[in-house]
Amino acid sequence: MREKGLLIVLSGPSGVGKGTVRKEIFARPHTAFEYSISMTTRKPREGEVNGVDYFFKTREEFEGLIKQDKLLEYAEFVGNYYGTPVDYVRETLEAGKDVFLEIEVQGARQVREKFPEGLFIFLAPPSLSELQSRIVTRGTETAEVIQRRMTAAKEEIEMMDLYDYVVENDTVAAACDRIGAIVIAEHCRRERVSARYKKMLEEN
Amino acid sequence: MREKGLLIVLSGPSGVGKGTVRKEIFARPHTAFEYSISMTTRKPREGEVNGVDYFFKTREEFEGLIKQDKLLEYAEFVGNYYGTPVDYVRETLEAGKDVFLEIEVQGARQVREKFPEGLFIFLAPPSLSELQSRIVTRGTETAEVIQRRMTAAKEEIEMMDLYDYVVENDTVAAACDRIGAIVIAEHCRRERVSARYKKMLEEN
Repeated sequence: MREKGLLIVLSGPSGVGKGTVRKEIFARPHTAFEYSISMTTRKPREGEVNGVDYFFKTREEFEGLIKQDKLLEYAEFVGNYYGTPVDYVRETLEAGKDVFLEIEVQGARQVREKFPEGLFIFLAPPSLSELQSRIVTRGTETAEVIQRRMTAAKEEIEMMDLYDYVVENDTVAAACDRIGAIVIAEHCRRERVSARYKKMLEEN
Repeated sequence: MREKGLLIVLSGPSGVGKGTVRKEIFARPHTAFEYSISMTTRKPREGEVNGVDYFFKTREEFEGLIKQDKLLEYAEFVGNYYGTPVDYVRETLEAGKDVFLEIEVQGARQVREKFPEGLFIFLAPPSLSELQSRIVTRGTETAEVIQRRMTAAKEEIEMMDLYDYVVENDTVAAACDRIGAIVIAEHCRRERVSARYKKMLEEN
């Protein structure tokens, strides 16, 4: 009677600090997630190791995997492909381990379609909740600047609609604590626990 | 822009250790919940203080409150009423504080009707998940004993259906950690956070 793992997807606007939060999570001693290594067609930088930092592939190999539907999500940035191999994710989840992805928002959208039951966490800039006090307290901003900020904030808030949780990245440590709490809580969700108990009874 | 507090309801089968878990939660230095003190018609025991351990009321007063719909939930045990005053709960939630109730399952059912948005946590006996290994490893049990246990387990699992989360009381400390994580996670739920952000934008 083994419970399937959780697919944990951390995403958010570019520049919000997803990579820093992910590194801190995996630097913590009690983290029990498996990190899904991305695949890319870009050249390895000095010190980067195949299978550790990325799986490095040729453009032909990558496009072959796209055709075979072997990528959970992928995107092209500045002429290079980046993506998440789906087999590793499925096998690790089946083995009862939680898998952690840190990806861009477009990628998260693709993952949601394939794994609607995943746990989607949006990392939000603290600027969002600071916005109000900044607008109120600073009298130096022009109406145009304020308007631009409001529009940007609106776009970010709309982006959130895809997600289950929003974690503010006020400090890296606090954001990591919240993400850890969310994963613990999700493992306690009644649907999940009671399905496990029911299965146990049926098997006896 | 103040966020409403969460109503946290801890319940579970009698004898599971709800009171012990609740005491440990409130003994922890970082607990920021308000504990809702129950009301009762039973006589104070030695050392019990009105307004600390319980609000002690006469039978007439209690029945008056029932008629005025001033109780969030109530029940009668061995000739005495026990209940949760609703005004304190509403006012504390409105003030943005989380309120914690530790009540019997019948009470939890009444609260769910009045506060469907509450956070309902079922404290489960570890015997439930130990059941399988016990059945498999011990050859000494009669079929009748096993059957009785399975029936009891089924009833407890059905009880869970009302709840959002199930926390196993394997150790008091672990159960309290999980409850703490659940509350943190709930405060990060997207609906809750994005509603707050949206309200902030509208107010500017």
